[in-house]
Amino acid sequence: MYDSMRHEVGLLVIGDEILSGRTADKNIHFLAKTLDENGYTLDQVRVIGDTRQRIISSVQEFSDVYTYVFTSGGIGGTHDDITFASVAMAMGRNIVRNAQAYHILDGYYKARGMPWTDTRRNMTMMPENCGLLRNSVSLAPGAVVDNVFVCAGIPKVFQCMVQDALVHYMQGGVSMYQRSVYLDGIGEGMVGDMVTQVAELYKDVRIGSYPHFTADGFSTEIVVRSCDRGALDRCFCALRSALDDMD
Amino acid sequence: MYDSMRHEVGLLVIGDEILSGRTADKNIHFLAKTLDENGYTLDQVRVIGDTRQRIISSVQEFSDVYTYVFTSGGIGGTHDDITFASVAMAMGRNIVRNAQAYHILDGYYKARGMPWTDTRRNMTMMPENCGLLRNSVSLAPGAVVDNVFVCAGIPKVFQCMVQDALVHYMQGGVSMYQRSVYLDGIGEGMVGDMVTQVAELYKDVRIGSYPHFTADGFSTEIVVRSCDRGALDRCFCALRSALDDMD
Repeated sequence: MYDSMRHEVGLLVIGDEILSGRTADKNIHFLAKTLDENGYTLDQVRVIGDTRQRIISSVQEFSDVYTYVFTSGGIGGTHDDITFASVAMAMGRNIVRNAQAYHILDGYYKARGMPWTDTRRNMTMMPENCGLLRNSVSLAPGAVVDNVFVCAGIPKVFQCMVQDALVHYMQGGVSMYQRSVYLDGIGEGMVGDMVTQVAELYKDVRIGSYPHFTADGFSTEIVVRSCDRGALDRCFCALRSALDDMD
Repeated sequence: MYDSMRHEVGLLVIGDEILSGRTADKNIHFLAKTLDENGYTLDQVRVIGDTRQRIISSVQEFSDVYTYVFTSGGIGGTHDDITFASVAMAMGRNIVRNAQAYHILDGYYKARGMPWTDTRRNMTMMPENCGLLRNSVSLAPGAVVDNVFVCAGIPKVFQCMVQDALVHYMQGGVSMYQRSVYLDGIGEGMVGDMVTQVAELYKDVRIGSYPHFTADGFSTEIVVRSCDRGALDRCFCALRSALDDMD
């Protein structure tokens, strides 16, 4: 397979506000791009609501199947933030005050004369013995529970936590190579039959055909991807030569 | 429950290009917003690759659980477009030439002197006895198979097909009502405890608390939603009054 050497990752986007259309998710695209650039394959994404049982079953399923799992959303301190507690339950951990998280926030609140409300305390109730994901934006950290990275939903904070996970917790990225052929003014209907023939010959390469429509008409981008650089080049040249024969 | 009167919908976004980060999905947010405005609840989204077995099992699972299912992507005519065939298999239908789709495209190609390549023919190979979803952008239609709407991935075409599904195939939308309180300069840490107390009293209303960070500091939006207008108003007034008592 074109990416069989890569670790697979699952993403759970948690939040009623995404499903109701109130908020447009930005974390899926960021994680997809960032994982690909760092040598991991995002295999599946699920967007689910702030519902304890759904979070628990999804985390368990993904944690069993994937090398790494990311969650985004639901780690603030209000009543609708139930991700830490749900992930703890999914992974068989207690939920306890995290001394390090408490220390981080305590310093911040003391320096600003802000009181420790229950809502702020809730942000420090985390799965027992978890690692922490740094949050340089609003300080309250994310959690690492076995292979699950529990991140904030706010894009800036999510991005910060993903970078921390990549640098400090993830291992074994494998580069993916990619080449594209741009066909201006040619719809995929004119080249698809030939692309299909090439795709059947190069099974260790993944070929995608992406049409665009503009006021000027159709155009097509054919993208060839593989972790095997030699296989990629052989497939790309076969494609290029077949395209030239068409002219 | 705050939306128990509503039909639930599932969305399957199908495409390697979303998972690899090549393309940022725009269909999730459009569908979420459009369904909410039309009285349906988007309960879950899955983003999966162009893999036959994954599409089949997801379509079957969603078709059993949800009143309506949308899929986006993979209905072009090239080798990586396997959604029509996979949905047909999931729903126990044969895949056959659709006479109406053929007629639509035949007229278009004849008028422009474009040949019927295999790739173009593939776009007319659809699940047996399906309904059609109109595509006023690039003409090749989507399919309706029982409760599954099989739509294109290109956002303009997807939007066109969703509108057709809403107008001609979906029934029973129930309005959701919503009120927001904006708290400028107040982080959710200051109001969360009170919001939690109100949320516990009004179980038929869903309260969301959404923090924002800007250079000026924290602010919070509290969103109250319910299909029951009376319940919504009672909860909103309780919230408003609790907030006023804090000042």
